[in-house]
Amino acid sequence: MNPVTALRWQDGALHLLDQRRLPAEQTWLRCVSAGEVADAIRAMVVRGAPAIGIAAAYGVVLAARAAFAAAGDGWRAAIEPDLAHLRNARPTAVNLAWALDRMTARFATTSGDPEPALLAQARAIHDQDLAANRAMAAHGAPLIAPGSRVLTHCNTGALATGGHGTALGVIRTAHAQGRIAEVFVDETRPWLQGARLTAWELQQEGIPARLVVDGAAAWLFARLRPAWLIVGADRIAANGDTANKIGTYTAALAARAHGARVMVVAPLSTFDPATPDGAVIEVEERPAQELTQLAGQALAPAGFAAWNPVFDVTPAALIDAIVCEHGVIERPDAARMAAFLEAAGR
Amino acid sequence: MNPVTALRWQDGALHLLDQRRLPAEQTWLRCVSAGEVADAIRAMVVRGAPAIGIAAAYGVVLAARAAFAAAGDGWRAAIEPDLAHLRNARPTAVNLAWALDRMTARFATTSGDPEPALLAQARAIHDQDLAANRAMAAHGAPLIAPGSRVLTHCNTGALATGGHGTALGVIRTAHAQGRIAEVFVDETRPWLQGARLTAWELQQEGIPARLVVDGAAAWLFARLRPAWLIVGADRIAANGDTANKIGTYTAALAARAHGARVMVVAPLSTFDPATPDGAVIEVEERPAQELTQLAGQALAPAGFAAWNPVFDVTPAALIDAIVCEHGVIERPDAARMAAFLEAAGR
Repeated sequence: MNPVTALRWQDGALHLLDQRRLPAEQTWLRCVSAGEVADAIRAMVVRGAPAIGIAAAYGVVLAARAAFAAAGDGWRAAIEPDLAHLRNARPTAVNLAWALDRMTARFATTSGDPEPALLAQARAIHDQDLAANRAMAAHGAPLIAPGSRVLTHCNTGALATGGHGTALGVIRTAHAQGRIAEVFVDETRPWLQGARLTAWELQQEGIPARLVVDGAAAWLFARLRPAWLIVGADRIAANGDTANKIGTYTAALAARAHGARVMVVAPLSTFDPATPDGAVIEVEERPAQELTQLAGQALAPAGFAAWNPVFDVTPAALIDAIVCEHGVIERPDAARMAAFLEAAGR
Repeated sequence: MNPVTALRWQDGALHLLDQRRLPAEQTWLRCVSAGEVADAIRAMVVRGAPAIGIAAAYGVVLAARAAFAAAGDGWRAAIEPDLAHLRNARPTAVNLAWALDRMTARFATTSGDPEPALLAQARAIHDQDLAANRAMAAHGAPLIAPGSRVLTHCNTGALATGGHGTALGVIRTAHAQGRIAEVFVDETRPWLQGARLTAWELQQEGIPARLVVDGAAAWLFARLRPAWLIVGADRIAANGDTANKIGTYTAALAARAHGARVMVVAPLSTFDPATPDGAVIEVEERPAQELTQLAGQALAPAGFAAWNPVFDVTPAALIDAIVCEHGVIERPDAARMAAFLEAAGR
């Protein structure tokens, strides 16, 4: 059984698993130019902030190859249109800009054909993400008692990252250690990342799992007693308040009402000490059509309005543990978060 | 603007709004035989326990007409196959059996052509349901302060009943009284009754409303501050614990966490004094395919398992008011429920 992966560099090209076609089909898209990578990012062939950043880094390798072939030592000027193309593929993705900045920082120290040095840099970005995920899993898994049921939300797995995953990485490692009896997967409306992607990852690896509708959370904790809700994060404020996919806060309330615990798993790059608490986090609202239509079918009357926020904010008081690559913050609050960041050298 | 209705008796036939085609199309199905009515109930052209019971009552009128035409005074024997056909259309629907029993109770006192007497009885069942709904609305609406936002779950409207609705009837009346600024509608996975049916009813009547995913409940109460969650009930235990569509309990926890109140609206026939509390209510579990497929499309990997309970049970401690046609039970518990039922003569 090969581990699930969103992307791989092979035979001088970037191969992307087309996540738009999951779970029905496994189709790999082979990208041999930066333009193809940018188009794939824009079209959401690949999604998940870390995976997008890694794909863009490999995109820079392809851009440099083409620029060096066309312009020789003038490749640094010739590459600019491709870099802009990659940068604009998903303008709000922080990891994408960060990965491009790390790649361009190598341009000055490269001489001759830039491809080997840039490929090494892209691989380093990829490997570091995977290593951080494995470190999170090593910190988070021991919190789970052997034989536990857990609930997860959205997709935080190998498909969203450089491999293994954040919250789903903890679950993978905990399963390998005999700690997981069964995973419950929220379908995660409106985008169904749980149903389409997390379910597929778990099925690929033979981890026992069942899908539930997001609204079933309270009844699930009441009747089947999962011990943990395990989720990722899009941003973690200085006091531990956590922005994550819409539905996370509702599930956390359901967990707390039944004595289950809540674990947030995210890399240190997600921590935002400049945001004091969740009250000041702005949440993007998306179009009504994401609720009223599915694959061209009408789920609601034409023109019906919707309130469609992408994220919600779970108060730190509902979170039992925040896990990152440097360790675990139990019962997070502003003081514990600050002490942890200081100890981690941040 | 005509009020929304699920069914009407007209020109000697039962006309059913085909709810399977909502919200895309308004198609009326004309039934001139009991067999057609039974088939329509089985196929879920009409759904909602009260609406099913009323449709079946009119089905008995059509059955009696055919039996009298074929057998004259021998119609009481000739009608039996049609009665069985109706009774088996949805075997677990309590209202269906109740309505058929009320119809057959009239057989003994009928002489000559039975159609006029049975039609009067079917109309009485229909009118009584509508009158009970209007009484619930009159009791429930004054609990809502003018200008409130409210959240509702599933479909409890005119489409599910003899007209006006239970929880949605309270909302209709409260809107007419200027109490409702905006209705939020849970899409209500997996069957999407909120998105497909409640949204359509509200749009038909011009009541301002927005759709939300079920998982957004906590963030909705945190940010947009609905004052009430207003829901129906499938069964209410002696202590006030309430079984209702999956997702209700989760939404009630979200309401309580933000100081919003929870109103359950259901006819007295839903009260079950023989069930002491929610712990003993058995909840039907339905096939995984209801989550993993939608209109033939795969939402999850083929063969993926699901936990798909139809109902959940909201503890009475989370319920601020139970409204029935006889009045309001505030902060329900076993003692208040018993006192109310005694006062109502039950």
